[in-house]
Amino acid sequence: MKVYDLLTRVRANKPLIHHLTNWVTIGDCAHVTKAFGASPVMAHAKEEVQEMAQLATALVMNIGTLTVDLIDSMKMAATVANKNDVPVVLDVCGAGATQLRRQQCCSLMQDVKVDIIKGNASEIATMAGYQMQTKGVETGQVSGDQISFAKELAVSCKVTVVITGAEDIVVDEKRTAVVKNGHPMMGDVVGTGCMSTSAVGVFAAVEKDFFYATLSALCCFEIAGELAAEASRTPGSFRQKLLEEIYLLNEQTINIRQRVDL
Amino acid sequence: MKVYDLLTRVRANKPLIHHLTNWVTIGDCAHVTKAFGASPVMAHAKEEVQEMAQLATALVMNIGTLTVDLIDSMKMAATVANKNDVPVVLDVCGAGATQLRRQQCCSLMQDVKVDIIKGNASEIATMAGYQMQTKGVETGQVSGDQISFAKELAVSCKVTVVITGAEDIVVDEKRTAVVKNGHPMMGDVVGTGCMSTSAVGVFAAVEKDFFYATLSALCCFEIAGELAAEASRTPGSFRQKLLEEIYLLNEQTINIRQRVDL
Amino acid sequence: MKVYDLLTRVRANKPLIHHLTNWVTIGDCAHVTKAFGASPVMAHAKEEVQEMAQLATALVMNIGTLTVDLIDSMKMAATVANKNDVPVVLDVCGAGATQLRRQQCCSLMQDVKVDIIKGNASEIATMAGYQMQTKGVETGQVSGDQISFAKELAVSCKVTVVITGAEDIVVDEKRTAVVKNGHPMMGDVVGTGCMSTSAVGVFAAVEKDFFYATLSALCCFEIAGELAAEASRTPGSFRQKLLEEIYLLNEQTINIRQRVDL
Repeated sequence: MKVYDLLTRVRANKPLIHHLTNWVTIGDCAHVTKAFGASPVMAHAKEEVQEMAQLATALVMNIGTLTVDLIDSMKMAATVANKNDVPVVLDVCGAGATQLRRQQCCSLMQDVKVDIIKGNASEIATMAGYQMQTKGVETGQVSGDQISFAKELAVSCKVTVVITGAEDIVVDEKRTAVVKNGHPMMGDVVGTGCMSTSAVGVFAAVEKDFFYATLSALCCFEIAGELAAEASRTPGSFRQKLLEEIYLLNEQTINIRQRVDL
Repeated sequence: MKVYDLLTRVRANKPLIHHLTNWVTIGDCAHVTKAFGASPVMAHAKEEVQEMAQLATALVMNIGTLTVDLIDSMKMAATVANKNDVPVVLDVCGAGATQLRRQQCCSLMQDVKVDIIKGNASEIATMAGYQMQTKGVETGQVSGDQISFAKELAVSCKVTVVITGAEDIVVDEKRTAVVKNGHPMMGDVVGTGCMSTSAVGVFAAVEKDFFYATLSALCCFEIAGELAAEASRTPGSFRQKLLEEIYLLNEQTINIRQRVDL
Repeated sequence: MKVYDLLTRVRANKPLIHHLTNWVTIGDCAHVTKAFGASPVMAHAKEEVQEMAQLATALVMNIGTLTVDLIDSMKMAATVANKNDVPVVLDVCGAGATQLRRQQCCSLMQDVKVDIIKGNASEIATMAGYQMQTKGVETGQVSGDQISFAKELAVSCKVTVVITGAEDIVVDEKRTAVVKNGHPMMGDVVGTGCMSTSAVGVFAAVEKDFFYATLSALCCFEIAGELAAEASRTPGSFRQKLLEEIYLLNEQTINIRQRVDL
């Protein structure tokens, strides 16, 4: 797997990544996008999302602080993205926590084509149709085989599915992989999930094989996370170090640290 | 006072703290909540606030960038919290600055039970019914005895009242205490007030004596603030160091540094 | 040019800077305002923007994540500011990217008096009436003389115009200047544009000659940026260092580093 090649393409092409995201980590998502070498733009007004989506190379949507209005804007943006073959990434943040999130995510998936869907185990199980209870935006207990949940969703929706956790699982209709990079400290930092979704959007902007793009993005993000965690006394200084390590990622580091089971 | 015992409970129970807050410090509030060992969730859509409040162990509301819609969502969330005996914390950020803030805070206090109300001296004086002028979200001059303002409000609304400042005053119907911890640099950093309110929500989630929970939260927050300020060249690096020091708080540090007048 | 004198006034007067800005960099704008010694307040609800604007010493507006509602609030706030001779600063962030941004900026400029308008080269060209395409919030290629675009806009709208870039151009109806301070790393950090607009608002609050206020603000901001970049291994740690360097700015540093062509 030539993860570094994709990172090189990102840095060369500086793709424009249109976000409709939440108000908690919106800045972090922009910073991560920029640290990878891409260009973030956040725009959610109904009057402009279509035009902004027209300019974008990837669309990243995150329901972390959703409203019904925001979902309407997401549908408008994604419809344009679908027409232009621009990849659409959806973070189903908190999908298991409330009816609104479940329903709106399902409605989104019905009305537009989502190319890559990302969540923790209980969020993805919820999207696959299983009754779950998540604790806010953190994962609940998931019984059963996570990969089978993900595979069901991948097949039924023709979507690349990511389950984030201590190890990240990436599944599409035919393939399965596990990204073993990462560090426990990342679970103690707000926003790492949202930021990894931005990373996926960045890589999907430069590689049409979304399974491969997603794996590469997570691999890079989690390696930078390892390096940042190793350099951080506590989670309090992790985010700044993460941005530094993403910016500094090079071929040697990626090749040495990469732990992906295909 | 066994401040550390409460912190231990927070770290063991990881309570879910539902925030309806402002768009300036929303990320900082989430980070502080997480640094204490609790789990933040931010959700404000009318269609889901009740359900999210149902999952929460404490509800934190902050009017820093309020709209009328957001206040409606706060009332819906707080009504659920009241039914479930979940503590409700209100930061009356900027209450003295505009009619909207004054009126909406009063309306909130009438429609739902707020358990702990927090503001600077001029904000609390405003809430106690005195004509004040605050300078945006910073405190104005307050003549008269701050403790008497706080006591009036505590008695009339059966609420624990916090006045933050160089020293923090905590008052309920019967008791008064002063938290003398803290550092002048904290006044030069945007968001310390909002973050301390999140800290109060975190501790109220694990201790039903709200007076004691509030004191303990402020004591821990202000001690971490002292340590962060001592380690910061300027206010510019304070926030990151604060998150670090909150995460690192231990029994010995709290016992040595604690300066609370009961 | 006595740049330091203006900074001294800011620190002495602590002017209240009312922001209606975007949700990505709202925290950064508040932090920069505070680092300069001024006092930020963010308020956008229609029910209170007029009253908040009444308290303010400068009004900073930024369309980075605009909605039509937010523009309505901006008009209400700016109308009050105009009546009170309070300076109005507008960052036309992304003005070239969508019709909504172009139209709403033009509508704003027609309905209220903007004193200082700021954008990158393609945003200002758009506002001067030239057909441009910006890439999200980053600048596109601008052919022709940037100063002539800026001058046209300055004359037609009686406004001080700022074009930010490797060098910042400041133009009013009669005068032109170039601020040559700054560092390439600033282009790799999300939010430096928005933060510099807050800096301009802070200085306009203490100096009625807006050309001179703007120059001084940019000079200070860009010098702090140089120092921050020199102290940063990567863009990832730049923002924290920037806040530190702004706070530490002194007369000697400004006098030695200042590179302004009048």
